[in-house]
Amino acid sequence: MNASNRQMTLRRYPEGMPQESDFQVISGAIPDIADGQVLGRAIYLTVDPYIRVHISPSMSIGYAPTTPLGAPIPGEAVLRVERSKHPDFREGDYVAGFSGWQDYAALQGDALRKVDKRLAPLSAHLGALGMPGLTAYAGMTKLSEAEAGQTVFVSAALGGVGAVAGQLARIKGCRAVGVSSSAEKCSYAVETLGYDACLDRTKQDFAEQVAAACPNGIDVNFENAGGPVFWTAMQNMNAYGRVIVCGLIAVYNEDAPPAGPDLSQDLLRAIALKRLVVKGLMVADFWSLRPQFLEEVGGMIKDGRLHSKEHIVVGIENAGVAMMEMLSGRNFGKTVVRIADD
Amino acid sequence: MNASNRQMTLRRYPEGMPQESDFQVISGAIPDIADGQVLGRAIYLTVDPYIRVHISPSMSIGYAPTTPLGAPIPGEAVLRVERSKHPDFREGDYVAGFSGWQDYAALQGDALRKVDKRLAPLSAHLGALGMPGLTAYAGMTKLSEAEAGQTVFVSAALGGVGAVAGQLARIKGCRAVGVSSSAEKCSYAVETLGYDACLDRTKQDFAEQVAAACPNGIDVNFENAGGPVFWTAMQNMNAYGRVIVCGLIAVYNEDAPPAGPDLSQDLLRAIALKRLVVKGLMVADFWSLRPQFLEEVGGMIKDGRLHSKEHIVVGIENAGVAMMEMLSGRNFGKTVVRIADD
Repeated sequence: MNASNRQMTLRRYPEGMPQESDFQVISGAIPDIADGQVLGRAIYLTVDPYIRVHISPSMSIGYAPTTPLGAPIPGEAVLRVERSKHPDFREGDYVAGFSGWQDYAALQGDALRKVDKRLAPLSAHLGALGMPGLTAYAGMTKLSEAEAGQTVFVSAALGGVGAVAGQLARIKGCRAVGVSSSAEKCSYAVETLGYDACLDRTKQDFAEQVAAACPNGIDVNFENAGGPVFWTAMQNMNAYGRVIVCGLIAVYNEDAPPAGPDLSQDLLRAIALKRLVVKGLMVADFWSLRPQFLEEVGGMIKDGRLHSKEHIVVGIENAGVAMMEMLSGRNFGKTVVRIADD
Repeated sequence: MNASNRQMTLRRYPEGMPQESDFQVISGAIPDIADGQVLGRAIYLTVDPYIRVHISPSMSIGYAPTTPLGAPIPGEAVLRVERSKHPDFREGDYVAGFSGWQDYAALQGDALRKVDKRLAPLSAHLGALGMPGLTAYAGMTKLSEAEAGQTVFVSAALGGVGAVAGQLARIKGCRAVGVSSSAEKCSYAVETLGYDACLDRTKQDFAEQVAAACPNGIDVNFENAGGPVFWTAMQNMNAYGRVIVCGLIAVYNEDAPPAGPDLSQDLLRAIALKRLVVKGLMVADFWSLRPQFLEEVGGMIKDGRLHSKEHIVVGIENAGVAMMEMLSGRNFGKTVVRIADD
């Protein structure tokens, strides 16, 4: 056990894209645990787009407060149990829980889930088998109404959520069309993840490429990005299509709405004319799906039909940079930070 | 029979709010009819918000083309059959069909519906018992998922669609909260239509009034207006609320999106955070509901539980002005134009 508890905290709230100097590693005490708690030692930290929302005072949202300056940045982690005062856990167990970006945390046992190393590597339990994977699974199985032969469009196609959404679409017999930010990532999406097509959003002719890749239009837009990619998808939506609003990574760095014109009324108009159904997705509504999800998606990973691709950054001191890279699309897969050996 | 067929046509495409000089009555020939057709003499013309969309070249939409200059403005009418070459219709029958703003039209019998004067006055067959009423009925019964005790918010509360939506909500046991544009109309909405509350959108403290009238938030926003009223509703939406996008009368006069900032991404964000379901509504998807609708809503009108309130303008030469008044909220109920005696 380290002598201290390293914590990656906010020195100040980022304005726009976070800078390395917005973050600061401090040293805290290793906490005691009370009855019902376990002491967890984090091995992998998650770096998810939604965390950007929690470190902005102007975007504080309902389900979680803004992170105070000097406190560990929030997020899920995979941890090893070091000590337990909860009957379900003992030293050496692997668990996942919301411990934030720090080495050690005292966690309520009842809020933890066990992590099964045999199902997939520990890092995948923050990715395809973790909250992002469950998010994708909930969206595809409960909200999308996707049917075999339909076209499912996935922005952030290699991200934690997108990669699973696209693969589930493909496994369901849909045409899976993804969006990413480089030729290399798009090749991986097609060759390894099995997308039918993946378009590079940085290309000048991106809109034409999307239209060409969706000759029968888009039936489901699994929206992880927002911004221009969202509007390109809208141009291709079929009547009665579904838009699942899961994430808006393209605008998470913005403290204020983008400059005009105001397209909100055009969006409403398009929804009416195409009879779209636009649904908000938050994984917190779907915790009860987890057993079914682990069995189904765990099985797909085991038999090689579904891949979990983590972008692994090493060292808690690099967690802030890992977030900056993820927000600008310089990651390759779901970003996690390894801060200890398992 | 008149010697000629008066037609209300477009002299030029309106820019912004239509002007009287955009319209022109011309005299055309009374058409012959072929087998399978009937010759209809229009008694009431409808003046609905969606017609504004059809007389703008920049807003030509999928389901109907832009009206050519010099052609009758499109829309449904209640007509008396003058001659018939269709086995289901004979002289003296009353029908509704898409004849446009003109005295006479040769209409395919198969595209007409009979109108039953005993159910309600002829004018109501363009209102509560017509397409607007069916629109409201489809939205409330098929899309809203409204349950007794929930709050249903209705913009354009006295309009053809809104008045029926609000009354159906009240009859279902929901709290019906309407929006209109004068104290007089709001009083009517509460006292006659039975809204639990109706707020005047022209008041300075409109937003506060909406919040006060919806102490438990809004579960269903039946959106007929768009613009600022829409955003006020959004502020009060409950988690898992439904937004039915039916009409956007507030922006139909705009040839281009309003000035910024661009709130489209804020809208997506709100949908995600509140897990809203936003659904487009077009009545054309629900023609098959008509028999059930006529029986149910016709029964409600007959036994006095549901009111149809038409704003009746007299004379085809006033149809353009009637549209201008409707678009600026100076009507009182669903606008129709009476152009002949029944």
